[in-house]
Amino acid sequence: MESSEPAWSVSETDVMRAVAEIVRDGREAVLATVVDVEGNAYRRPGAKMLVTPDGSGVGSITAGCLEDEVVELARRVLEDGESRIETYDLMEDDDVWGLGVGCNGIIDVLLEPLDDGFRPVVDAFEDGDDVASLTVLESDHDDVSRFDRGYYDPTDGVVSTDDGFEWLEKSDVDVVDELVERGRGGTIPVSADDRSIELFVDGIAAPPELVVLGTGHDVAPIVELAAKNDFRVRVIGFRGADAVADRFPDAAAVSSTSPSTLREAHDFDENTYVVVMTHNFLDDRLAIDELLRTPVPYVGLMGPRERFEEMLEEFADEDRSFDDGELDRRVYTPVGLDLGGGSPYQIAHSIVAELLAVHNDRTPRHLSEREGPIHRRISSITDD
Amino acid sequence: MESSEPAWSVSETDVMRAVAEIVRDGREAVLATVVDVEGNAYRRPGAKMLVTPDGSGVGSITAGCLEDEVVELARRVLEDGESRIETYDLMEDDDVWGLGVGCNGIIDVLLEPLDDGFRPVVDAFEDGDDVASLTVLESDHDDVSRFDRGYYDPTDGVVSTDDGFEWLEKSDVDVVDELVERGRGGTIPVSADDRSIELFVDGIAAPPELVVLGTGHDVAPIVELAAKNDFRVRVIGFRGADAVADRFPDAAAVSSTSPSTLREAHDFDENTYVVVMTHNFLDDRLAIDELLRTPVPYVGLMGPRERFEEMLEEFADEDRSFDDGELDRRVYTPVGLDLGGGSPYQIAHSIVAELLAVHNDRTPRHLSEREGPIHRRISSITDD
Repeated sequence: MESSEPAWSVSETDVMRAVAEIVRDGREAVLATVVDVEGNAYRRPGAKMLVTPDGSGVGSITAGCLEDEVVELARRVLEDGESRIETYDLMEDDDVWGLGVGCNGIIDVLLEPLDDGFRPVVDAFEDGDDVASLTVLESDHDDVSRFDRGYYDPTDGVVSTDDGFEWLEKSDVDVVDELVERGRGGTIPVSADDRSIELFVDGIAAPPELVVLGTGHDVAPIVELAAKNDFRVRVIGFRGADAVADRFPDAAAVSSTSPSTLREAHDFDENTYVVVMTHNFLDDRLAIDELLRTPVPYVGLMGPRERFEEMLEEFADEDRSFDDGELDRRVYTPVGLDLGGGSPYQIAHSIVAELLAVHNDRTPRHLSEREGPIHRRISSITDD
Repeated sequence: MESSEPAWSVSETDVMRAVAEIVRDGREAVLATVVDVEGNAYRRPGAKMLVTPDGSGVGSITAGCLEDEVVELARRVLEDGESRIETYDLMEDDDVWGLGVGCNGIIDVLLEPLDDGFRPVVDAFEDGDDVASLTVLESDHDDVSRFDRGYYDPTDGVVSTDDGFEWLEKSDVDVVDELVERGRGGTIPVSADDRSIELFVDGIAAPPELVVLGTGHDVAPIVELAAKNDFRVRVIGFRGADAVADRFPDAAAVSSTSPSTLREAHDFDENTYVVVMTHNFLDDRLAIDELLRTPVPYVGLMGPRERFEEMLEEFADEDRSFDDGELDRRVYTPVGLDLGGGSPYQIAHSIVAELLAVHNDRTPRHLSEREGPIHRRISSITDD
């Protein structure tokens, strides 16, 4: 296996897309997943890298410190067809690895040969559903083997597996469910018949969806940057959007409808973020009216605040009412974070930054500010 | 002239780069520049679009409403070689154009045939210097003609022109200087011999520079997103960066040095933003020591706060002192805005969002929050 430069700077969606392709085509590959991290690491548990037999990789599990070694190890996994866990201790040699970021910490990486057993994950990804992949990492139990696998579907709360898993209790499944909802990976201890089992739960939340209403030129940079940040983007125009579909190569779908049939044209759910930018006052107003009848958490409206206030006057004339505080909670206008800058990419950057902050439930501010002022002298260094 | 789809979603830097290429090659093209805007518009005065004889365009002057018409008009400018100003009134038909965003307002567009006279702008752009292009839009003065041009170089405060411009007084030049510093365009009234002249000042600030210290895989998405947002990006590694230069296709330069020779290797000035991410504790610490001896306004340090606090302990041991408040003012660690999300692109997005906010002197928050809560009923709509 030759080791070529991995495609490192890709979105999470790109990694899953590559996994789906391999599984669908029945080709060979190895999936490396971070299952545990001690100390500060660049990536979290659940971070994935796909390695194909030609030694190329898609995705990242560290800031570039381990990828070459993992590619090498993947060769052995391909050869003997056996999953394995490798522990990389990057704490030992601080002079080489530095302290506290990326090339640091103790990282456990699970390497598994990709096979048709991954299909439930691939199906969920392609259908835009949440899913968890469950892998036994350690077991004292005679009937439970290392690398036994199962899948959890949060829509029906059912674990499907060929490997039993009847030792998994309701309370364990609740923890799994919680991890999936947060899109997190983690290793949980499970006890069965007084034996202990360590189960890695890879909670893979469906990517959030961004619907952009509008097909102007200013839409394209938003689609591009949102897709890089793992939003599944759909562009909806109100007349002839199909004609300009090639403007949005990063969109998962481009379609046309009218404002009044918006809710039939698409399932606007709790995981759907919407940016309204048709550049037409009436279309925008009708769209917002419809959107606020759906459970979407975010409606970003391009344009100055006064424009929305004029819409509100018209809503009032029509006796269209809104729940208390709902407008302040769900409508973001002017859209975006206050980053300054007026170029198309800068405007798009500020909008996607706002989408990330709302989706991740963050108050947008400097991370350094969150941590408070820098202390000149400190008596002890936190070890973790 | 056939009208093909313009390259709309490009950075400002890409537009200037295309202009530079045309001027250097002595080819024909037309530069369209927004010189005045009434009402709410997507782009500001100074926004540019380059139109080549094949009818293709680079850049945007609106959200896509006028670009086709400007391409058409550019054909006539090419034919007769005469500059012209066109006024587009998009206020008239609200049903078609909507209210208040993008396709709205009254927009004056200056169209000029690009020729060697633009060389001062191109030279300044390529040297990373500020410059202003001055164009007479209206004149009652017998000796001053419409479309007379000059250039202002803020480093020596001198206006250079073939068209006289001796009517420009010191107080006018001060206004020009102010516009350049802020990178803004604007039309200023000038009076000479009791006659009035309208002068469009296109203040073109040199793009801010981002220096990334480090050459890990995590650097690439930062370079890519910063370049799209008009930072001129330089990657500096401490050992053998040249070997990985092809990882950073969007970087203006990639080079190697050592921490101790950092200040000789590059001119770190007030317009230089630095992200330190070598993943090596010692290298990062030495680099920060050096950087805080330069006037750079921003040093972003990858990694947790504790890592920087350990550096501070070592600085204290070495009796390296810092000005009061300087660390809180210039050092951003953990680097980036608090947007959540842990993929390489999401981390890069949060860092570039922070760069934009600091460069544009903004407090990062929702634009909607800046405007305050949404009012349910308002008695009057602001007209502007």
